[in-house]
Amino acid sequence: MMRTAYHEKLAALTTNLSQICRMTGAAIESATQALLRADLSRAEQVITDHDRIVELCDQSQHDAFDMLALQQPVAGDLRSIFAAIQVTADVDRMGALAVHIAKIARRRHPDCAVPAEVRGCFAEMGTVAVQMSNTASEVLLSFDPDDASHLRDEDDVMDDLHRQLFSLVLDHDEWSHGVQKAVDVVLLGRFYERFADHAVEVGRRVVFEATGKLPAQQDIATY
Amino acid sequence: MMRTAYHEKLAALTTNLSQICRMTGAAIESATQALLRADLSRAEQVITDHDRIVELCDQSQHDAFDMLALQQPVAGDLRSIFAAIQVTADVDRMGALAVHIAKIARRRHPDCAVPAEVRGCFAEMGTVAVQMSNTASEVLLSFDPDDASHLRDEDDVMDDLHRQLFSLVLDHDEWSHGVQKAVDVVLLGRFYERFADHAVEVGRRVVFEATGKLPAQQDIATY
Repeated sequence: MMRTAYHEKLAALTTNLSQICRMTGAAIESATQALLRADLSRAEQVITDHDRIVELCDQSQHDAFDMLALQQPVAGDLRSIFAAIQVTADVDRMGALAVHIAKIARRRHPDCAVPAEVRGCFAEMGTVAVQMSNTASEVLLSFDPDDASHLRDEDDVMDDLHRQLFSLVLDHDEWSHGVQKAVDVVLLGRFYERFADHAVEVGRRVVFEATGKLPAQQDIATY
Repeated sequence: MMRTAYHEKLAALTTNLSQICRMTGAAIESATQALLRADLSRAEQVITDHDRIVELCDQSQHDAFDMLALQQPVAGDLRSIFAAIQVTADVDRMGALAVHIAKIARRRHPDCAVPAEVRGCFAEMGTVAVQMSNTASEVLLSFDPDDASHLRDEDDVMDDLHRQLFSLVLDHDEWSHGVQKAVDVVLLGRFYERFADHAVEVGRRVVFEATGKLPAQQDIATY
């Protein structure tokens, strides 16, 4: 294979991952709408559309493997492929988490899974999640460590929202929606928070790709 | 580097991953004991010991990267390294999930986080989790697809236990422990279930390593 063709293939791999990352953002945006509006068809759509994300992730894995097999990559290219293998796992998981959210929306339909007083919090978590997947998508193209560090700031916002959500659910005087709703809300909160963690991971991988240095793992969240 | 030295290094990488996998089994075993007995020092130990797992995972990532950089691996060796990159992410996460369990045990100390009627269920989930990490650890050395398929059976047992747990918590007539305990129990249940999923993933990766074919992803669990 010619070197140029090889670099085109590598660029295509990165572009695909950036695209998948954006698709997970669209998925969690739709899942959030489905959740807040108890919109069954939108929930179903997220679940159906996920097949395409899985397919593209499988393709990325194969492409990365083939590129390692067909030509011995030099340091920088090797780092790109190495990062791509790991980023694929992250975006795959981000898509799955959006599906988890959509499935809870579907299960509680025609009811809304989340009581009125936490809907604002979920709307914000949805907005931050979409923003983070878009940032991660851009970082995959820009390789900019500064952009990647924005993901940390966005993740701090997500963690604050996650804590707020827990306070609302665990406040004995205020929560009047019973155990099932509490369970739904807490699991949903966790899905958003994990989605954000994976977006941060994408940023870490890209920093490694650009600099050869992997930033420290984030601390494990309390919950 | 001589080919023989290279293969020794590859064998060492696999042995290390198998060892880390076994360590995550020990971690979730201790975390389960800490949880069931409200044993603070044991919970602290799991949290402290996790640093070593993270360190070993980082080392595995570096080793895998170096092996790709230093010598162009042929198909079989390349599959081994490719699998190792992904297995590292899984065992890293398994360790983190054991820490999550230990942290809930610590947070509720001197109370026991889990009410008496679900302790049997958690004891069983703990047993299955330990068994699965041991199976995954063995599969990493045996490369046996049949051993890997045992992980699926063990995961089915875990899924059943997870469902049982949900029934207990969501049974309006029976659950008398309030929202906070319900939230703890449901999150704990999810940590065990995710631990098991990652063990299954390790098996899938090893099958790919041995056969060049990746078995289908498991269906995304309902919750």
